[in-house]
Amino acid sequence: MATTPDTTLGDAGEFGLISQLVEIFEGDEHVLVGPGDDAAVLRIRHGHVVVSTDLMVEGRHFRRDWASASDVGHRAAAQNLSDINAMGGTARHLTIGLAAPADLPLEWALDLARGFAEECASVGATVVGGDVTRADQVVIAVTVIGQCTQAPVLRSGARPGDVLALTGRQGWAAGGLAVLGRGFRSPRVLVEAYRRPEPPYAAGRQAAEAGASALIDVSDGLLAEAGHLAEASGVAIDVRASSFAVPEPLQAVGAALGADPMQFILAGGDDHALLATFPPDVAVPEGWQVIGEVLEGSGVTVDGSAYDGATGWTHF
Amino acid sequence: MATTPDTTLGDAGEFGLISQLVEIFEGDEHVLVGPGDDAAVLRIRHGHVVVSTDLMVEGRHFRRDWASASDVGHRAAAQNLSDINAMGGTARHLTIGLAAPADLPLEWALDLARGFAEECASVGATVVGGDVTRADQVVIAVTVIGQCTQAPVLRSGARPGDVLALTGRQGWAAGGLAVLGRGFRSPRVLVEAYRRPEPPYAAGRQAAEAGASALIDVSDGLLAEAGHLAEASGVAIDVRASSFAVPEPLQAVGAALGADPMQFILAGGDDHALLATFPPDVAVPEGWQVIGEVLEGSGVTVDGSAYDGATGWTHF
Repeated sequence: MATTPDTTLGDAGEFGLISQLVEIFEGDEHVLVGPGDDAAVLRIRHGHVVVSTDLMVEGRHFRRDWASASDVGHRAAAQNLSDINAMGGTARHLTIGLAAPADLPLEWALDLARGFAEECASVGATVVGGDVTRADQVVIAVTVIGQCTQAPVLRSGARPGDVLALTGRQGWAAGGLAVLGRGFRSPRVLVEAYRRPEPPYAAGRQAAEAGASALIDVSDGLLAEAGHLAEASGVAIDVRASSFAVPEPLQAVGAALGADPMQFILAGGDDHALLATFPPDVAVPEGWQVIGEVLEGSGVTVDGSAYDGATGWTHF
Repeated sequence: MATTPDTTLGDAGEFGLISQLVEIFEGDEHVLVGPGDDAAVLRIRHGHVVVSTDLMVEGRHFRRDWASASDVGHRAAAQNLSDINAMGGTARHLTIGLAAPADLPLEWALDLARGFAEECASVGATVVGGDVTRADQVVIAVTVIGQCTQAPVLRSGARPGDVLALTGRQGWAAGGLAVLGRGFRSPRVLVEAYRRPEPPYAAGRQAAEAGASALIDVSDGLLAEAGHLAEASGVAIDVRASSFAVPEPLQAVGAALGADPMQFILAGGDDHALLATFPPDVAVPEGWQVIGEVLEGSGVTVDGSAYDGATGWTHF
């Protein structure tokens, strides 16, 4: 995109901005993987240290009337822990920054921290630092540091002939968000899936050890993430819609809202499911479901055709 | 402080909040130093990895009409690099998160990133990740990861009989901020000191290698940081005002604004000077100036008496 001094972030879009930022930030020989994948990989003496960072903004990534502070803490941690999962790594240490208005109830901040710490503890990770400051709006900034015992699995390793596989719930959080957005609180199982995702934390390392060729977590929408993987790998991806059984609660929400429930599955994020590709000679591990294939070319199709709905979420 | 469900962040204050957060976040055997010092220290295999995080909020930590985007980037990096310096470590890798309104000029964000990367490069550190998202206000979230080749120097090691020493400019940035606050742009050397601090990046490791007993960087005000050091060490600190030569530009600003220029030195932050204590049998290294002494007791005095001005900056 050609830019002028008047170009705004909104004009450039998230990816336009990031692509330019990546050019500005140079790595060194200790950065095995810099910006552009789910996490950075650092060679610090004898280990592979994996680092990722994320921001959550009130009104954009969460609403205080849609989820408790503890839920928001769980979600903020899960989103970051999932990035380490998506490298095939093990999350170890996190920092959290909280910018908030001075009239934010202290209990809200403490419950946030408690939920955050609980989610971290569920994978054996700990919070090692943070910062708090005043702002007009609640902003939560998280950085996670993890380790890989084997080579990290990147987005760029998919090859034509590989199978595409998914593990974890997919579309549930999007369904929950949709009902909350209409003022409802049920089906409760979907609302809870949105409020407190349950990423398949053990599956990243499992996929890495099984021999996955590429790995990414579904934070921004299944087709959008498949697109990121396809682009990084220089391949095309075809998703088979028929491989998904639409869970009953999503069917109910689709009927109630007059929406195609497949939309939640194909475009939903926030469950932090994992999407992997496996070479043809690798057995897809237990718990993973084959949902498509890797082809020569570029872009993402559904059952061989372009998908005309939204594919995910944009940040600007 | 007794808290109720109605207690706000403003009521609790930054340190009230942090002290409660620290109780919520438990470390593990790999966290050599958790929250409460300048940075967290992690044992990751054979190295001491040092991590710190900070937030900067527009209108609170910077104003776009007082400093260029590049300056803000330099400051954001300097503030974090200084935290690693204050452990006696070497900064290696940083992440940066940017939350910003959609109408923020793209060039502002890119210049911010450039300034940030330049400051990092000046100490051999690199940016390894980041995140961008939309918010009502510009918020910059930085995490820095560093290494220590020797044991990190904490805030808690000062002992009675140690000398207190300072290195780096002190009070210049506060003087610059004061003139900007009155609508002036000179003395230029002070305004530039505020816009682009020059922390003594080599001095942290120098102090560690020389045998400093405690180390902290002056981000929030000299007396405030001396107070943090005294409290963490369980000692009293007396600062000798006569040890400071008031630089000519600070004298000029004091005269112009009708303020005591010593106030900038004693309560100013943002220069990211380093404050250390050295045991009596250790030679204070070159470039460090003895400015006081460590005593039995608690609290901070100036020339033996309580200081009745502001001692630093509070975040809520």
